[in-house]
Amino acid sequence: MNVTVRGRSRPYRTVTFDSRTNQVRLIEQRLLPHQFKVIATAEYGATARAIREMVVRGAGAIGATAAYGLAQGARAFRGTDLRKFREHVEHVFATLKVARPTAVDPVNAMRQVRRRMEAGTTVAEQQQLAWAAAEDFAREDIEHCRALGHHGANLIRNGQRILTHCNAGWLAFVDVGSATAPLYAAQAQGKQFHVYCDETRPRSQGATLTAWELAQQNISHQVIADNAAGLLFSRGEIDLVIVGSDRTLGRTGEVANKIGTYTKAVLAHRHGVPFYVAIPLSTIDWTLKAGHKIPIEERDASEVLGAWGKTRSGRLEYVRVANPSSPAFNPGFDVTPPELITGIITPAGVFRPHELWRRRSKLGGPPDSRSPRGFV
Amino acid sequence: MNVTVRGRSRPYRTVTFDSRTNQVRLIEQRLLPHQFKVIATAEYGATARAIREMVVRGAGAIGATAAYGLAQGARAFRGTDLRKFREHVEHVFATLKVARPTAVDPVNAMRQVRRRMEAGTTVAEQQQLAWAAAEDFAREDIEHCRALGHHGANLIRNGQRILTHCNAGWLAFVDVGSATAPLYAAQAQGKQFHVYCDETRPRSQGATLTAWELAQQNISHQVIADNAAGLLFSRGEIDLVIVGSDRTLGRTGEVANKIGTYTKAVLAHRHGVPFYVAIPLSTIDWTLKAGHKIPIEERDASEVLGAWGKTRSGRLEYVRVANPSSPAFNPGFDVTPPELITGIITPAGVFRPHELWRRRSKLGGPPDSRSPRGFV
Repeated sequence: MNVTVRGRSRPYRTVTFDSRTNQVRLIEQRLLPHQFKVIATAEYGATARAIREMVVRGAGAIGATAAYGLAQGARAFRGTDLRKFREHVEHVFATLKVARPTAVDPVNAMRQVRRRMEAGTTVAEQQQLAWAAAEDFAREDIEHCRALGHHGANLIRNGQRILTHCNAGWLAFVDVGSATAPLYAAQAQGKQFHVYCDETRPRSQGATLTAWELAQQNISHQVIADNAAGLLFSRGEIDLVIVGSDRTLGRTGEVANKIGTYTKAVLAHRHGVPFYVAIPLSTIDWTLKAGHKIPIEERDASEVLGAWGKTRSGRLEYVRVANPSSPAFNPGFDVTPPELITGIITPAGVFRPHELWRRRSKLGGPPDSRSPRGFV
Repeated sequence: MNVTVRGRSRPYRTVTFDSRTNQVRLIEQRLLPHQFKVIATAEYGATARAIREMVVRGAGAIGATAAYGLAQGARAFRGTDLRKFREHVEHVFATLKVARPTAVDPVNAMRQVRRRMEAGTTVAEQQQLAWAAAEDFAREDIEHCRALGHHGANLIRNGQRILTHCNAGWLAFVDVGSATAPLYAAQAQGKQFHVYCDETRPRSQGATLTAWELAQQNISHQVIADNAAGLLFSRGEIDLVIVGSDRTLGRTGEVANKIGTYTKAVLAHRHGVPFYVAIPLSTIDWTLKAGHKIPIEERDASEVLGAWGKTRSGRLEYVRVANPSSPAFNPGFDVTPPELITGIITPAGVFRPHELWRRRSKLGGPPDSRSPRGFV
C-alpha cells in the first residue's frame, strides 16, 4: 500500500527481497506509527532475529519473511556439495522456525519453499528455486488478500460507518491485509465511508497501526476508546463491523481474535448490525472441535497497567498508568460464537460461519467426510 | 477510609475542615495513584481553585468542598454588619459556584448551608451555623453512602467475582463511595470476594483510582483492559456487576454513566449476570423524560490518543500513543436502558429501575402525581 515519506507517496510491502544483495527488507513495525523506516537484514540469522524481536508481525508477514529468510540462507551457501547444502538449509529452517515457536505460518511457508527446491538437481538450481518459491509465496499472500478484499468490498455501501478492532491490516500481511482489505477495495471502487478504529487496549494496535494505515490511504477515520462503541451502536451510528481472526474453527465457525472482539460482536448482534470476520484460509483450524479448547494466551500484566507512547520531548517511553500496587489480568484473545457472526470473508468468497465445514474442499480443508462435532 | 502512609494505616476523608485555622483540607487527587498527599486551602478563593482544577472531583466530594468553602468564606468575614456580611457570603457563593459551572452538587450543598445560616441573627451566629451546616452536609454524605453500602452488601455472596467500571468510590464522595460502598460493607461483614476493575479508558479511573482504593483496603482485585470483561463473562467468571451513575432518570430508570457502562450491561444481560447501579439520591433526575435527551459530553481527543502515567524515571507525563495524524471521537458517557439493570442501590434500599418513579416520595422525588412518559 502507499506510504507518504517526506511528502512523496509510493507503494510499499511489509517485506521484500533484494536478490542482488541477498537482503530481506522489512518495515520496522516497532517504530510505527511514530516513525516509518525500512531496514535490511544481510543474512538469515538477522532475518530470524527480526521475526523474534517483532520488527515484523502478523501471520502473512512473518510467513513471507521466513520464506525469504530460507531463500536468503540457501543462496548464501558457497559450494556444490548437495548433501552439505541440504544440511545447511535444514539449519536455516530450524533457526527461522524457533524465532517464533508458536506461529504456524513461518513453518508452512518454509515447507512450501523446501518442497519446490526438491525439483532442483544442483545447488545452484535449488538456490534459484528457493528464491522463486519465496517470491511466489509473497505474491500469493497478496493475491489472497486482494480476492478477500474484492468479496468484502461488495458488503460496503456508500456512506457507511464501519467499526474495526485491532489491526488485521496490510502491516500484518505482505500487503493489503485481511480486515482492511475490503476497505481498500471499496475505496478503489470510489465508495465513501468512515471507519471507527477501536483503540484495542492493552496494546493499542487499532490506535497505532490501523489508524496509521487508514491515514496513509486517506480513508476517513477516527480512533475511539474501546468503551465508546456501545454509545455509537445505541445511536445507530455503526452500520457494519469487520474484524480479523487469529484462528477460526472450520468445524464450528467459532472465531478467536484479539481480546474485545467478542464484546463488539455481542453489541452488533443486539443492534442488528452485520458483523463480518475477514480471514486468509491459512487461519482456519480444521482440527479443533470446540472454541473453549482454544488456548487463550495470558500476556504480561505491564501491558494493562501502562502504555507505550511518545513523550512531549519526542522519546518513546512506557508510562505506568495504573495504581502501582495493583495486579492485572491480561488475556490476549477471546472467542466469538458463530451465532453472532454474519459472515466470514475469505479469498474464496463470503460464507456463513457454519458453512465452513460443508465448503471445506473449497477452503483448503481436510477430505475427512465425518460430520463435525458440536455443530450440525 | 484507611490509607497507608509511610507504613501506617489511618482513616481519611476526601475533604475535612479545620475550624481552628479555618482551612479546608483536601486529598490532592491529581497525584493519585502515584502519590498520596493532603493539601490545605487557607481561604475560599483557593478552595474554589481546588474545585476548578480538579484537586477534588466527584459529586459528593465537590458538594462538601463547596459547603466547607462557603463556611470558610463566611468565617473569614471581620465585623458585625449583617448586610455587608450577606453581600460577602453571596460573593463567596458565586465564586465557588463558577468553579465547576455544570455541576449541581456544589450549588445544592451551598444552598443547604445558606438556608441554615438564616436562623442566625448575628454575623457570629451565622458563621457558627455555616460551619455546623457544612459539617452536617459532609456527615450526611457519608451516612448516605454507608446506608447504600449496607443495602448493597446484602447482594454480595462469599466467593463472588465482581466487575466494576470507572471510579464511583470514596474518592468521589466525602467517604465510603457509591459503587464501592457495598464492597467495603461486605468486607466489614467478613465476606471474601474478588473485584475486576475495568481500566476505564480513556481516563483510566478504574486502573488508577478504584484500584488504588481497593489496594488500600486490602480487597482482592485485578485491573483488566475494558476489552477483557467479555472473555470473563463468557467463561462464567463474573458473578455480579456494580457501577455508579452520573445521572439516573427517575421517570424512566435509564442510567447515564461513564462511557463503557452500557457495553458491560449488555454483556451482563447476555450472560444472566446481575447488573446493579449504586447511586446517592442527589443523582436522580426527576425532570428529564427520555435518556436520549441526556446531553453526552464530548471530551478532548487527546484523552483517547494518549495516556498519562509515570515514566521509568519517575515523572508524570502524557504520552501520545495513537498515530500522530489520526483524529479521535471521545464521548464521556453512555446511557443504559432499564431492561438491562437488575437493580438500583440507593441509601433508601434497592429498587428495580422502573420502581423509582412509583417510590419517588421515599427517594426525594417530586410530589407530581402525573405518570411519567415513556415508561408505564
